[in-house]
Amino acid sequence: MTLLLLGPPERARAWRPIFDAVGEELVVGEDAVEDASAITHLACWTPPADLGCYPNLKVVISTGAGVDQMPPLPPGVMLARTLAPGIDAMVRDWVLMATLMLHRDMPRYLEQAGRGEWRTHPPRPASECRVGIMGLGRIGRAAAAPLSSLGFDVAGWSRSGHPVDKIEVYGHADLVAFLARTDLLICVLPLTSETRGLIGADVFALLPEGAALVHAGRGAQLDMQALRSALEAGRLRAAMLDVTEPEPLPQSHWAWTDPRVIITPHTAAETDAVEGARHALAVIRATREGTALPGFVDNEQGY
Amino acid sequence: MTLLLLGPPERARAWRPIFDAVGEELVVGEDAVEDASAITHLACWTPPADLGCYPNLKVVISTGAGVDQMPPLPPGVMLARTLAPGIDAMVRDWVLMATLMLHRDMPRYLEQAGRGEWRTHPPRPASECRVGIMGLGRIGRAAAAPLSSLGFDVAGWSRSGHPVDKIEVYGHADLVAFLARTDLLICVLPLTSETRGLIGADVFALLPEGAALVHAGRGAQLDMQALRSALEAGRLRAAMLDVTEPEPLPQSHWAWTDPRVIITPHTAAETDAVEGARHALAVIRATREGTALPGFVDNEQGY
Repeated sequence: MTLLLLGPPERARAWRPIFDAVGEELVVGEDAVEDASAITHLACWTPPADLGCYPNLKVVISTGAGVDQMPPLPPGVMLARTLAPGIDAMVRDWVLMATLMLHRDMPRYLEQAGRGEWRTHPPRPASECRVGIMGLGRIGRAAAAPLSSLGFDVAGWSRSGHPVDKIEVYGHADLVAFLARTDLLICVLPLTSETRGLIGADVFALLPEGAALVHAGRGAQLDMQALRSALEAGRLRAAMLDVTEPEPLPQSHWAWTDPRVIITPHTAAETDAVEGARHALAVIRATREGTALPGFVDNEQGY
Repeated sequence: MTLLLLGPPERARAWRPIFDAVGEELVVGEDAVEDASAITHLACWTPPADLGCYPNLKVVISTGAGVDQMPPLPPGVMLARTLAPGIDAMVRDWVLMATLMLHRDMPRYLEQAGRGEWRTHPPRPASECRVGIMGLGRIGRAAAAPLSSLGFDVAGWSRSGHPVDKIEVYGHADLVAFLARTDLLICVLPLTSETRGLIGADVFALLPEGAALVHAGRGAQLDMQALRSALEAGRLRAAMLDVTEPEPLPQSHWAWTDPRVIITPHTAAETDAVEGARHALAVIRATREGTALPGFVDNEQGY
C-alpha cells in the first residue's frame, strides 16, 4: 500500500521519517507518482479533480477534522477525517476561552479600553450562565467537561441525544427547549446539509434576550446577516467567531469593526503534523487488516 | 455583640435579612450608632479615622479579599479578610480566561481584527506553555487545578513552599529558578511590604524571552514603566492586567492603547453580598466561641 500526500512541505517533512520508521510507502506530491496503480491512500485537504487515474485508491483522508470541503468521492473509495487528540484539545481551549470572554464581558471591556474608560460591570458567577453546546462529538464533549467543572450550567444538543457525563442532553427534536434555556450558545457542529445555515434568525429568536454566541463549527452554518440583525435588536449581546463565510472574511466586512463581535481567523486548531501522520498510519493498518477505519465518515451523516 | 457595617446600600439590604434571621445585631452606617460601646465588630473596606470611639471593638472585617487598604488597627483589634468561595472562583475564571487569551495570541488577533486582517498564527497546545503562578493561596490553588487539567505545564511560587496537588512548587528562595522556567507568569499575590513593586525589571529580566504576564494581584505590585520597557525590548510579548496603579487608570495612560496590553478595570471578582454576610456571621460566632477567626490576618505576614 502506498499513501500519496498532498499538502504543504512542512507536513511532508514531518510525515517522511514517521512513515520510514515503520516501512510504509509515502509519495509526496502528484509529480512524484511513478506508478499510479500503487496508490491506495490519498491524504489531502481537497483531492485533485481526477481521481480516476488512481485505479486502486481505497481511502481518502482529510487532513483536517472536517470533511465538508470534500467533493463526492468515486464509488468504492472511503473517506476518513483526521483524528488527532491535539485538535480536540485546541478547539476545547478556544471554546473555553471564548465562553469565558463572553461571560466576563470582554467585548464591552475591550470597547471601553479603546477609549481609556475604567468602568466596572458586576461580574457574575459561572453558575448563573446556562451554556448550551450544539454538537456533542469529540470536541463538544471535550468542552463540556471543563465548563461543567468551572460551574457553568451546561447542556448539549445532538442528533443522537446520547447521554454525556454530567450534562443534560437534548435530542434532535428538542431544539426549541434547548435554545430556550441557553444564555450562551456554543456551536461545534460539523457542516452537513442539515446544519448549513442552521444558526440564523429562527435560532436567535428562540434564545433568551441578550444571549451570546460562540461559533467554532463551520462558517456556512451561521447566517451573518441574521447575526447582525440579532445584535442590533438586542436579542444577542455578543458573539465570538472562529469561522466565517467566506474565509478569509473580507477586510471591509461589518463584523470586523462591530465591538460586539470578536473574530479569530479559523485558528481554534491546526492538525499537528506528527499526530496527522500517526493517524494516517492507523488508517493504512486498518485498511490492511480490514478493521474499522479511524475517523471513517459515513456518507449519509456527513461526519 | 453588634456589627457595624459601612458600605454601599445594596450590601446593607442584602445583610439585613441574613442577620435578622439568626438574631444577630447589625447597625448600618455610623449615623445609626446609638451606643458606641456596643459595637464589637466593624465590616468595611476602610475604617473611619477614629476607631477610639468604639471602646469594645474586637474585630475589623475587610469586605474584600485583600487587606492592603487597611491602616494599622488599634492594639487588641483583630483583622479579618472576607472569605467567600465566590471570590476565589471568579478570580480563578478571570485568570483562566486571561491565560488562555495570552496563550492563544488574542492581543495579536484583536490588533489584526482592528484593521480587518485575516492572518493565522499556528496555535500551540497548552502542554507547550509553562505557566508559573506567584501566590499559592486559595486563589492560586484554585487557578492551578483547571490550568493543569487543560494540559498547561504549571508550577507555583509561594513564601512557604508548601506542596500543592499536581504542580511543582518553588519556595521563597527559588524565585530565579521559578522565573527561568515560566513562559506565562500569573501574579495572584497579596499586597504586602515584600510584594510591593515585586513585578518589575528584575523579574522580567529573569523570564524567558517573549514571556507573558497575567496580573490579578494588586496594582502596586507591578512597575508599569518596567512593563513598558520589557514590552518594547521584546522580553515580554503581552500582558493582561485586572489591577493597576493607580486605579482607575487615567484615560491618557499608555497602557490603554498598547495593543500588547489588555486591561480590565479590577473586575476579576466582586464579593457576593450574601457570601460576605455569611462570612461576617461566622466571624462573630468565632469571636463568641473564642475559636480561630475565619480569614484572620496575621499582622506580620499581611495576609
